[in-house]
Amino acid sequence: MDQRLSLVTLGVGDVARARAFYEALGWKVGLEVEETVFFQAGACIVTLWSREKLAADSGVIDAGGWGGVTLAHNVGSTADVDAVIEEARRAGATITREPAETFYGGYSGVFVDPDGHPWEVAWNPGFPLAGDGSIALPSG
Amino acid sequence: MDQRLSLVTLGVGDVARARAFYEALGWKVGLEVEETVFFQAGACIVTLWSREKLAADSGVIDAGGWGGVTLAHNVGSTADVDAVIEEARRAGATITREPAETFYGGYSGVFVDPDGHPWEVAWNPGFPLAGDGSIALPSG
Repeated sequence: MDQRLSLVTLGVGDVARARAFYEALGWKVGLEVEETVFFQAGACIVTLWSREKLAADSGVIDAGGWGGVTLAHNVGSTADVDAVIEEARRAGATITREPAETFYGGYSGVFVDPDGHPWEVAWNPGFPLAGDGSIALPSG
Repeated sequence: MDQRLSLVTLGVGDVARARAFYEALGWKVGLEVEETVFFQAGACIVTLWSREKLAADSGVIDAGGWGGVTLAHNVGSTADVDAVIEEARRAGATITREPAETFYGGYSGVFVDPDGHPWEVAWNPGFPLAGDGSIALPSG
């Protein structure tokens, strides 16, 4: 299996509400088909789909709640962390961790979207961001 | 907020077990620090970390179980789908959907890793894969 991630699908209770939230963050829908919304997110795709349908499609049981997955959006400065967290707050997200220095020497905050999916917004000097927004582990 | 995904962190019950599973799929660890394992996955990073610590760090309550997130690994052919699903089966994954044609005109199967995180392995003729493994929505 190649070392690649292609899509992350977020199961949501209301696709229109979830779409409106991500649009309020400034994201533009790239494709909408069969009540599924796709956002091009750099070299990957972030998808919004009915959580009920996603559970059935994935062959898993959904007991509700958080399932051990947190997404991250890395940015180029501490000021950018503050700005994105404020943008998320205005869009209706719950801020579960206000921006602050982290144990790994970076700076981050966390917002949770209307369906309970957490996003860490981070500036991490150890993981450089390329001009195209891609992120790379330190080599060696 | 730029339309980018930087990292996906998978909360796991046992980092060593989870690491061994992804290594059995052929993935190579790029960095391991503070009981956290990082894999470079194309332009993103996939991280393995204690689910308990991740919940605390994300400011969410963990009731256990699946939380409405499914990852996808897209490949270039139906034969590649079959091959990756077999690789996952040999690595100890649970196959929750055997490879078959999908409602969207593609071909896919789903495996679930030892911590309950589902991965769809898909060939989707509508979403072209670039030579570098990145994926793009159809334009227009």
